[in-house]
Amino acid sequence: MSRFDWIDGTELGAEGFLALAERALALRAGSGPRRFPGKRIVAVFLNSSLRTRVSLEAAANDLGVHVVTLNPGADAWKLEWRAGARMDGEYAEHFADAIPALGEYADLLALRAFAGLKDPAEDRADPVLSAFRHWSPRPVLNLESALWHPLQALADAATWRHHLGPDLRGRKVALTWAPHPRALPAAVPNQIVLSAGLAGLDLTVAHPPGFDLDPEITARAAGLAAAAGGSLRFTDDPDQAMDGAEVVHAKSWSGFSGYGRREEEAAVRATLGHWTLDQTRFSRARPTAGFMHCLPVRRNVVVTDAVIDSARSWTTETAGNRRWTAMALLEEMFSRMS
Amino acid sequence: MSRFDWIDGTELGAEGFLALAERALALRAGSGPRRFPGKRIVAVFLNSSLRTRVSLEAAANDLGVHVVTLNPGADAWKLEWRAGARMDGEYAEHFADAIPALGEYADLLALRAFAGLKDPAEDRADPVLSAFRHWSPRPVLNLESALWHPLQALADAATWRHHLGPDLRGRKVALTWAPHPRALPAAVPNQIVLSAGLAGLDLTVAHPPGFDLDPEITARAAGLAAAAGGSLRFTDDPDQAMDGAEVVHAKSWSGFSGYGRREEEAAVRATLGHWTLDQTRFSRARPTAGFMHCLPVRRNVVVTDAVIDSARSWTTETAGNRRWTAMALLEEMFSRMS
Amino acid sequence: MSRFDWIDGTELGAEGFLALAERALALRAGSGPRRFPGKRIVAVFLNSSLRTRVSLEAAANDLGVHVVTLNPGADAWKLEWRAGARMDGEYAEHFADAIPALGEYADLLALRAFAGLKDPAEDRADPVLSAFRHWSPRPVLNLESALWHPLQALADAATWRHHLGPDLRGRKVALTWAPHPRALPAAVPNQIVLSAGLAGLDLTVAHPPGFDLDPEITARAAGLAAAAGGSLRFTDDPDQAMDGAEVVHAKSWSGFSGYGRREEEAAVRATLGHWTLDQTRFSRARPTAGFMHCLPVRRNVVVTDAVIDSARSWTTETAGNRRWTAMALLEEMFSRMS
Repeated sequence: MSRFDWIDGTELGAEGFLALAERALALRAGSGPRRFPGKRIVAVFLNSSLRTRVSLEAAANDLGVHVVTLNPGADAWKLEWRAGARMDGEYAEHFADAIPALGEYADLLALRAFAGLKDPAEDRADPVLSAFRHWSPRPVLNLESALWHPLQALADAATWRHHLGPDLRGRKVALTWAPHPRALPAAVPNQIVLSAGLAGLDLTVAHPPGFDLDPEITARAAGLAAAAGGSLRFTDDPDQAMDGAEVVHAKSWSGFSGYGRREEEAAVRATLGHWTLDQTRFSRARPTAGFMHCLPVRRNVVVTDAVIDSARSWTTETAGNRRWTAMALLEEMFSRMS
Repeated sequence: MSRFDWIDGTELGAEGFLALAERALALRAGSGPRRFPGKRIVAVFLNSSLRTRVSLEAAANDLGVHVVTLNPGADAWKLEWRAGARMDGEYAEHFADAIPALGEYADLLALRAFAGLKDPAEDRADPVLSAFRHWSPRPVLNLESALWHPLQALADAATWRHHLGPDLRGRKVALTWAPHPRALPAAVPNQIVLSAGLAGLDLTVAHPPGFDLDPEITARAAGLAAAAGGSLRFTDDPDQAMDGAEVVHAKSWSGFSGYGRREEEAAVRATLGHWTLDQTRFSRARPTAGFMHCLPVRRNVVVTDAVIDSARSWTTETAGNRRWTAMALLEEMFSRMS
Repeated sequence: MSRFDWIDGTELGAEGFLALAERALALRAGSGPRRFPGKRIVAVFLNSSLRTRVSLEAAANDLGVHVVTLNPGADAWKLEWRAGARMDGEYAEHFADAIPALGEYADLLALRAFAGLKDPAEDRADPVLSAFRHWSPRPVLNLESALWHPLQALADAATWRHHLGPDLRGRKVALTWAPHPRALPAAVPNQIVLSAGLAGLDLTVAHPPGFDLDPEITARAAGLAAAAGGSLRFTDDPDQAMDGAEVVHAKSWSGFSGYGRREEEAAVRATLGHWTLDQTRFSRARPTAGFMHCLPVRRNVVVTDAVIDSARSWTTETAGNRRWTAMALLEEMFSRMS
């Protein structure tokens, strides 16, 4: 059996992806998890984390799996990942040495490594995660990379499934760009379009001109959507995106075409305060529509308190689903090892 | 049953407070702890910790409880706690989103958040802990807040009980202010006066003019003391406070009336080196008297090596009691959940 | 029984040292470890760590032992270790208070504290580890100090034993100094000469003039080697050191005679690029010779990719042995406690 890594959520196909979300809902409803005593995960965080870190430790513990967490640069050496580097600078250790060593101590290796937002070709190659996979002797779990956030994908799917029912095909979902004080990577919106494709949703993405997603990724997502009976549309009118929506995701991101003009983009972003998702706009969606965001969220910048604190907000539920979907995924990954 | 939080140590009344200290001494003597397998604590440290962090993890582990520790700002996002904030600054996430999410992963949430020492009205409201409790869906354990340190309270009580016997009423205890290179919060002295009140001790607090404790807190503590058969007195003569004392606590703190004149207070503090607790002063207490300090302590500034390294120092024993009292308290908190 | 600390790897004599390496290889081959449920380690890291941190947590977990890890200065108070200090500066807590407190929470205390590289007399006394041992009420495990790295010693010995067979006496091993962008402590080369002495290897150390090891340590190692049927030689010709070698260690370090002229040494170091271990030099060793380095390593500065990525590199295997040797050592240390 070839190695099973969890990188973008498509590894088990649309059916397998949704089956994991389904299994998570069963675990949440009280189904006992499988146990894998003696197994171990080493989780490497090159960036901050709250939900991912804690939900992974909680889920693993519930499965009898031991987790060791590393924060290189804080508690361990700063890690170089570029092949062939002459290491006379700030990096004390190379992935080529660190990752195989960690593989000696664990059965599964996990990595968080955000986009650099400097070089589009580099980010597109998901370079840090790719190097990590290259050097890892163990299955790899992506805890959010430059391109993808596949644990969030499962939590989103579980929430969709819980509220919209078993058949997600053709259900109307909106994703609206939002303001933010900083330029952010596009891993989360990339993942939403891909997950929506897997689930066969009718997804409408609204963003201002220049804040486009990577066309390679949207083409791939559109293909998945078409295969599953869904669709992917874009608009620059956030109000229009709300029409008929049963779910509204908000998220900020940098434009794929914005590489090389990040400073200009920051100035543009400062003029886009009217993209904040507020009650007026949210009320254009269906009366039963839910609000979703992966968190952390900048309140009253991305979304107003009134929306996120309302009974229609599914953010805490989705954060909770991070635990159950991590359990479902770890069951799958450890089952394949035994 | 309403939610049981542990905030200032008065939650179970004087009797319940002392019963936990008694239970801790039984655990220390070898009584087997209750077990709560499958339970989990998420502990959020907004400030540094040594004893609290390690004794909590040790105590929880001995009860079969899993602990996940977060250091927001280091390994997770910096957290905003003020309601209604427009989050376009340094804080990436709000308590309103983070704490309910953590509540999805754990059965008990714990927080360390020291005083800001900027605004007396704000600190008096214990704002960060209060916001944490507001947003928490789970029982809350205070790991030291702007106002209180209720785990230290239990450890102090266990040490008092171990050395002074079962009846603490009317026993003479001194708390003396001490020099320090930095302005410190008053959570520990606040807690000592409150705990002494619960236990019915005759407590004498010595401090220089201007280094007063919050009069609201001392009035409350005096009321508790009176009800339990004890008393609370103040003096500006540290030698006089020693007379007849069976226990001597030393601690530095900022004056409650010192808000708004912290720089002036620093200059005054620099002239108060004679408040260091040394052998000469300590020898004015009873020959059997013990020295106590919550630690960490600035040696030869707060107290001399000769005092803290003597056989009369109960600091290591009290630090050890942190483990047994945390176990006793966690037994109480988890019992109420099942 | 007097307290059993693991400080430099000589504590059990040559026979005991090699027996631990042998036990590690048995554990690696599938022998079940002993279990010590309810036992606890507190590990204090004053410096960064990857392998030591993770292999210790993994090994302890496999033995049923709980580990709590502290990073003072990051998640706990900065610790002062000098006796008698007047603590009005940056250090919030003294070893004299912190270490006995940690001893109340754990059965074994572990410390990582690198050399200061400022004062030769101070480093020679291994002052931080020595103070830690002085204040510790529990057995102490050295996770790398100013002078020694005795867990690495066991891993190296397990690798030597695995590749060279049961009798290490008189086997030819080379240790070559290597360039590095920074001045590094000599704990690792100190340990290699001492371990080689215990094992009775014929060790040749090559280093440029001025990058000498502490003569007290090399004299002690030479004595051990002589007693075990081995030898210790020095040369300033790295090529010559390869002749007949079955194992080649590379490592950078500062000269013991370089104290007081570190800036000058940095300038000299910059001219020593030809000391990088490359294929040409490595090929002078035996065709079956293995390459070893404790890691982290500066690639293409200390050693070229071609050497460390070759089939002759034993670095990952040795890193893996860190887990099994830590298990073997913890079995020994916890067995002595019960």
